[in-house]
Amino acid sequence: MSASYRTEHDFLGEKQIPGDAYWGVHTARAVENFPISGTPVSAMPELIRAFGYVKKATARANLELGVLDEARVFAIMGACEQLISGQHHDQFVVDVIQGGAGTSTNMNANEVIANLALERMGFDKGRYDVLHPNDHVNASQSTNDVYPTAVRLALWFGLDRLLDSMAFLRNGFEAKAEEFKDVLKIGRTQLQDAVPMTLGQEFSTYAVMMGEDEARVREARALIQEVNLGATAIGTGINSPAGYADLACQHLAEISGVPVIKSPNLVEATQDTGAFVQLSGVLKRVATKLSKTCNDLRLLSSGPQAGFGDIKLPARQAGSSIMPGKVNPVIPEVMNQVAFEVIGNDVTVTMASEAGQLQLNAFEPVMGWSLYKSIQHLSNACLTLQANCVAGIEANHDLLARRVRESVTLVTALNPIIGYEKAALIAKTAIATGAAIDEVAQSLGIMTREEVEALLVPEKLTQPLRLEAGGQGKA
Amino acid sequence: MSASYRTEHDFLGEKQIPGDAYWGVHTARAVENFPISGTPVSAMPELIRAFGYVKKATARANLELGVLDEARVFAIMGACEQLISGQHHDQFVVDVIQGGAGTSTNMNANEVIANLALERMGFDKGRYDVLHPNDHVNASQSTNDVYPTAVRLALWFGLDRLLDSMAFLRNGFEAKAEEFKDVLKIGRTQLQDAVPMTLGQEFSTYAVMMGEDEARVREARALIQEVNLGATAIGTGINSPAGYADLACQHLAEISGVPVIKSPNLVEATQDTGAFVQLSGVLKRVATKLSKTCNDLRLLSSGPQAGFGDIKLPARQAGSSIMPGKVNPVIPEVMNQVAFEVIGNDVTVTMASEAGQLQLNAFEPVMGWSLYKSIQHLSNACLTLQANCVAGIEANHDLLARRVRESVTLVTALNPIIGYEKAALIAKTAIATGAAIDEVAQSLGIMTREEVEALLVPEKLTQPLRLEAGGQGKA
Amino acid sequence: MSASYRTEHDFLGEKQIPGDAYWGVHTARAVENFPISGTPVSAMPELIRAFGYVKKATARANLELGVLDEARVFAIMGACEQLISGQHHDQFVVDVIQGGAGTSTNMNANEVIANLALERMGFDKGRYDVLHPNDHVNASQSTNDVYPTAVRLALWFGLDRLLDSMAFLRNGFEAKAEEFKDVLKIGRTQLQDAVPMTLGQEFSTYAVMMGEDEARVREARALIQEVNLGATAIGTGINSPAGYADLACQHLAEISGVPVIKSPNLVEATQDTGAFVQLSGVLKRVATKLSKTCNDLRLLSSGPQAGFGDIKLPARQAGSSIMPGKVNPVIPEVMNQVAFEVIGNDVTVTMASEAGQLQLNAFEPVMGWSLYKSIQHLSNACLTLQANCVAGIEANHDLLARRVRESVTLVTALNPIIGYEKAALIAKTAIATGAAIDEVAQSLGIMTREEVEALLVPEKLTQPLRLEAGGQGKA
Amino acid sequence: MSASYRTEHDFLGEKQIPGDAYWGVHTARAVENFPISGTPVSAMPELIRAFGYVKKATARANLELGVLDEARVFAIMGACEQLISGQHHDQFVVDVIQGGAGTSTNMNANEVIANLALERMGFDKGRYDVLHPNDHVNASQSTNDVYPTAVRLALWFGLDRLLDSMAFLRNGFEAKAEEFKDVLKIGRTQLQDAVPMTLGQEFSTYAVMMGEDEARVREARALIQEVNLGATAIGTGINSPAGYADLACQHLAEISGVPVIKSPNLVEATQDTGAFVQLSGVLKRVATKLSKTCNDLRLLSSGPQAGFGDIKLPARQAGSSIMPGKVNPVIPEVMNQVAFEVIGNDVTVTMASEAGQLQLNAFEPVMGWSLYKSIQHLSNACLTLQANCVAGIEANHDLLARRVRESVTLVTALNPIIGYEKAALIAKTAIATGAAIDEVAQSLGIMTREEVEALLVPEKLTQPLRLEAGGQGKA
Repeated sequence: MSASYRTEHDFLGEKQIPGDAYWGVHTARAVENFPISGTPVSAMPELIRAFGYVKKATARANLELGVLDEARVFAIMGACEQLISGQHHDQFVVDVIQGGAGTSTNMNANEVIANLALERMGFDKGRYDVLHPNDHVNASQSTNDVYPTAVRLALWFGLDRLLDSMAFLRNGFEAKAEEFKDVLKIGRTQLQDAVPMTLGQEFSTYAVMMGEDEARVREARALIQEVNLGATAIGTGINSPAGYADLACQHLAEISGVPVIKSPNLVEATQDTGAFVQLSGVLKRVATKLSKTCNDLRLLSSGPQAGFGDIKLPARQAGSSIMPGKVNPVIPEVMNQVAFEVIGNDVTVTMASEAGQLQLNAFEPVMGWSLYKSIQHLSNACLTLQANCVAGIEANHDLLARRVRESVTLVTALNPIIGYEKAALIAKTAIATGAAIDEVAQSLGIMTREEVEALLVPEKLTQPLRLEAGGQGKA
Repeated sequence: MSASYRTEHDFLGEKQIPGDAYWGVHTARAVENFPISGTPVSAMPELIRAFGYVKKATARANLELGVLDEARVFAIMGACEQLISGQHHDQFVVDVIQGGAGTSTNMNANEVIANLALERMGFDKGRYDVLHPNDHVNASQSTNDVYPTAVRLALWFGLDRLLDSMAFLRNGFEAKAEEFKDVLKIGRTQLQDAVPMTLGQEFSTYAVMMGEDEARVREARALIQEVNLGATAIGTGINSPAGYADLACQHLAEISGVPVIKSPNLVEATQDTGAFVQLSGVLKRVATKLSKTCNDLRLLSSGPQAGFGDIKLPARQAGSSIMPGKVNPVIPEVMNQVAFEVIGNDVTVTMASEAGQLQLNAFEPVMGWSLYKSIQHLSNACLTLQANCVAGIEANHDLLARRVRESVTLVTALNPIIGYEKAALIAKTAIATGAAIDEVAQSLGIMTREEVEALLVPEKLTQPLRLEAGGQGKA
Repeated sequence: MSASYRTEHDFLGEKQIPGDAYWGVHTARAVENFPISGTPVSAMPELIRAFGYVKKATARANLELGVLDEARVFAIMGACEQLISGQHHDQFVVDVIQGGAGTSTNMNANEVIANLALERMGFDKGRYDVLHPNDHVNASQSTNDVYPTAVRLALWFGLDRLLDSMAFLRNGFEAKAEEFKDVLKIGRTQLQDAVPMTLGQEFSTYAVMMGEDEARVREARALIQEVNLGATAIGTGINSPAGYADLACQHLAEISGVPVIKSPNLVEATQDTGAFVQLSGVLKRVATKLSKTCNDLRLLSSGPQAGFGDIKLPARQAGSSIMPGKVNPVIPEVMNQVAFEVIGNDVTVTMASEAGQLQLNAFEPVMGWSLYKSIQHLSNACLTLQANCVAGIEANHDLLARRVRESVTLVTALNPIIGYEKAALIAKTAIATGAAIDEVAQSLGIMTREEVEALLVPEKLTQPLRLEAGGQGKA
Repeated sequence: MSASYRTEHDFLGEKQIPGDAYWGVHTARAVENFPISGTPVSAMPELIRAFGYVKKATARANLELGVLDEARVFAIMGACEQLISGQHHDQFVVDVIQGGAGTSTNMNANEVIANLALERMGFDKGRYDVLHPNDHVNASQSTNDVYPTAVRLALWFGLDRLLDSMAFLRNGFEAKAEEFKDVLKIGRTQLQDAVPMTLGQEFSTYAVMMGEDEARVREARALIQEVNLGATAIGTGINSPAGYADLACQHLAEISGVPVIKSPNLVEATQDTGAFVQLSGVLKRVATKLSKTCNDLRLLSSGPQAGFGDIKLPARQAGSSIMPGKVNPVIPEVMNQVAFEVIGNDVTVTMASEAGQLQLNAFEPVMGWSLYKSIQHLSNACLTLQANCVAGIEANHDLLARRVRESVTLVTALNPIIGYEKAALIAKTAIATGAAIDEVAQSLGIMTREEVEALLVPEKLTQPLRLEAGGQGKA
């Protein structure tokens, strides 16, 4: 029935489009061509908002340079506002994994914006003779500049959120570092008892690592700032008026609030995906450290009876369908899995980047999608890690204190006095016999118990030596 | 209001559950703990069906061994049937990425089945005193055996579909190999012109590669067949009755149609994820070859004027928002991206497998999800590659014929007669001067034009030499 | 001085070659072109032996088909024997990482064999007018068939050694499984105490995993068996006489002892590197499991005081330059690192395979080198793991026994009698109060101490239940 | 015989050491334990030099703080000078892949330095009662601070060389960009003809990418600057005197010339390997872009007759053992392989970093070795790429000019005048009929030939439009 469908065409022919769809013929073909993941572009609301910003900025530049007239530009800008405010995102129906370097997403946006604008101008959807997806919405543009620009904006928004989540988690570690700053324990290297430290020192490392990673994320985000808007097809700016690139970038920064910078070499910027690789590498670094941190939390809380047992994680859910009362470290475990996913995504991004050819990289869709997921999942996992795990961690004070008291590792502190070899003899004997260090030292005739006791004050062993005058030098 | 919520409890305390939810307290906690990807387990319908089969098979075994009574077992089996037939999948609300080795998915299944069964028995949801998610639905089971078993079944169903898709594509390549079997062209090595072949030979390689990969997928699928059902918590079968494991596996094979086999060492099988790594490695191999094949299709169809131009791909959508008439190889490009994703997923699976500790691998959820996506995306990409691209490929007959005629590479065939060094001299001269081989050979005094012509029949150069008696030996 | 150099030429010009070098102008150019890793092909003796076998087999086929005469063939075969017996490997001077799809290694072999053969025939090195590296040593061949064939042979030899090493390690695990078969311990899932098992069951899993991996390696090796000898440049067999391929393969199998099979589609076989990807994937699987196993050994031996302490690894070297008496799990640690290397190599192989184009994959050198290293390092690491670690592992009998006795996890066995919820209550109370399970059960009025004691016999908990008549069903 | 061996001991027992070896018992045990790759630490001369710097700096700090006396310190510093100047590197015999977090390399250094110092003091090797590897050479140190510090120094030296090599290559690309700045050609996106550009623009992108990567390498190098010297065992500085860390770092910076900075949190710095992951990620980025660049060079030079043929690479060696006169892009191909290797190494480094546990990462040896190889191979590959390939690249002027003249892609420039749809019609018709654009435009009645000609000046199409007053706006 004529009411429920309209006919659109492109240079491949005609196609029936549902009457209420804001998308058109190009979108329809893309949906047929890419039935891959079942996840539509609308799963990335930040990307759709980003398209709103980009198309609004370019429309304004086109108006100012005389490329488009006021009526069309105002209608386009109004349509873009609708996308920015979250409306009509369900009209972005092409698959997140798509061939064609983002052309299908860009045309989906061009068509939705064109039809929204036509409505605002009082015309029916599909009246492209009045306002055309390519000639007007896409004026002075190519997929090859607007798509990468929009993807960068979307990632920027995601990174903002990630940075907040990381800071939230870092604050949590810092609070625990402060809380545990006087709790002595035995540090471990290579899973073997090493020398004394405080549990606060242990947690401070997680905070410091997170802080360093936040700095790396900020650096990588700065590379994302650079856009190739105005490059059009291959960076030469073909079909855009002189001055357009600067103007469009300036408007985009102002409208979106993201401090975008026009790339100095647009031909290079159009084909280069180095910023995505860098960002992905940094996300991989974040993932690697968070996974290591969660491995530690799981180790430290192992037990309750036959493990390390240094700390207790809060119980968040029954750990087992068969073992009653079992509580498992499920929150750190989910972070581990997110980390493995992010590290895998990095390989995807790397391969997609390497596969770029000549003036364009056709594989930006899978890069954008992979990075998007990595950012969102890391961000969400940081939040649950802090809220549902780190915030509730408790120290097993008694166990930690007992282990410090009994630890053979304290013998290390005798090194500067008696030398490595005699200290090793004491350690070996103590482990074998189960006797205390001071007893062994005395029975082997190396030091008296009193000498040992004076030296082995665990609190002093968590920092460098205060050397006495005429001290232990000249060993 | 009492109608809209019910109260459930576990050993961590009480929780309000929406009155119409079939899931319960364990699921509710998991939803709170894992707000990671936003993709619920219901995105894997095969996994829910698989749980239906597993819980039905175990219920039957429990009945036969006297662990459960008829009333409960029949109710449970009926509920499982509902899941198998696709009902209530929306009740599987835990995130696909979750801590806890699948416990949350298993408890989600236990709770949904319990409440469906309670309804069938005429009781309200939540009446776990009558039929309990752990004591009855999960009787003789642990997450650690039913979850891996269900994941394997789900992958099996996916692999069935993948094998069909691969065969569909292989048939397409075979048809093209036949269609192009007499089309001569110049083969290329290292992107440089090499020696003559037929376009049919070229396409036959894609068919053969696909066929070999189907064989590899079948081998990997055979490893997936082996399950640890009956292992319970760590493989020792604790809390399951003697004979249960064999019986449950037997029922599962019969009910699901998947020829599952009980693993010979259940302790090993419970912690080992080698079959997932193997499958992932094979999917990576499939991806690698499909990506190579699509790279070839894009190279061979490059142009239309300044490229290789051996073949034409069917136009599927406008290639550019700015360049009118441009047609791009979008279908092969989407396969490339799926391949990059699958290769990245393999790293995720590998890391998750390596991270298993002692009696269990806690990271099966991310393995299952990664493999699931790899299988589905590869399968979908094979279908669109064949239907929307390979089926419509055409040869550029004129161009190919002209290139064979003019190719300096034919000089290779003179090797056995005049030796490598003289042949190289002819080739170098021909390239430099643009003259034909036979002319160069004659002008250099190496062979007459007639001798060259007699040897350089391209059709004969696509196969080994038929040696004449007293032939060209003794070079 | 004329005595120390000879002049050779190719179609690019002349070059001075050291008088005592068996290699010639092509090798000299390759050495200049590829100063990459500093590691020459002679670091892969199996590859040089493999070239000896391949060139001998092809020479014999050429003789039988009248392509070459007896004098040259006998000289060539004699030279090949020298390579096979390990002589003159220092003449393989091109870098293991090289452009050109192996052409430089093949020409290095052709030149060394030609000059060795010339010496045997009584001629000076460089007398290629008598016996030519291309026209005679390489007759009926191309790099594109002999190089992949030789690489496969080299890998086959390496895999033979790897399989021996894996079996050596598996036997070690089996011996420990037997030794510890009655040692009770608490199994752990997700690093939390789970249910009882034997230490023998734990070690048996390592043996079973290794055995399964040996089967996978054998399967992958079977794919390596298929060679494209006779394909020449692109698989069409150009410049080889009819019947040559079959003959050459047959001779190669006989001479080398490796059961090589001629590929059914030589065009496909010449460009396909799927067998390398498959093998690499399987080596990655082996690495993944060995890494997991070594992670377990390090966990189980953590301590000596503040760790798991289930087992003791033999002390192999002082663990620390500062901490006296510290002993670290250095042997498992080296296996972990080999595993990480092998997993990284798999990405290298995958990318190199994906990058193949049209009729050839130009990146086989880096694939061959990566696989070679993976095989050798895994093989060496298995040997040291067994000899220097597994063979000397001891159980901490007292600690293990005490932990089983005191473990709250035994409560799982009460499940089938009292249900999951009451069992959870007992567990939670026991953990919180430190009281024994039987006491808690009695004080909570759930069971008497005697009832609990009768059920909680750890030895019985390492296997399925023997159900009494009228048993615990109907829970 | 006493002359050829000396007896050394550690707490595991005695061992015979070759009389002329500067290494001792710890090294001997490590050699037995790690027969993995066959590549000794001496393959990293920068690492041995770095140990010379570190041990010299610490000795000086120990002297100033009264830990060691002058005689021993001067002897140790003299020994270190020998290592720095390249002497006795053959004494570093432990395998590059080793368990134990670098302890074996550190003890190898301690022993070699001790015995060299003993010789300088007039004592026999092995007289550790006079000067001890642990008590004196390693005084105030642990492997856990000196090993990571030395690895960082070694990488710094390597990165210096890499930056030079990258600049050398960048200069080469810049020279070509200048040389080709007026050579018009058709740009390509998605391997399909796109719009005009200059060959100079194309080469400028390679220069710009390299320059950006140099900036990233410098940033990553700055992270490598931060060292944990003074941390000793776990970062608490146990057994080092107060003030030592600052002093040692200050001396190290002065002696080595590398601007090392003491890490603000030594506990964190001792376990964190984030700087290695970051560096590895950046090297991966460099590799990714260089691989893409080399893919382009191979594509652009494909042919000579049936390829793109935009440029010619210099012939560096005969490309084939069978195809006379064939020249292959072997230099770009070797860069591709190095890139695949570097990308694989990144996975190795990532996994090794993720596997760190608690206060230490035991897997730094494989990280150091992987990074070392990546840096060296990339550096070498950049040099050969510039010297043996880029420097000699020539443009195929005639072919490029003809293609621009005939290209249908020029129709894009008509867009702003006639709209996308009419332009598409012209393009489609021109491709189908083979007729020129201007003819088609005229015959379709869209524009006259003269109008088309005025617009389609290729030189003007490589930049944005200069809009005429009252220009083509209001489309």
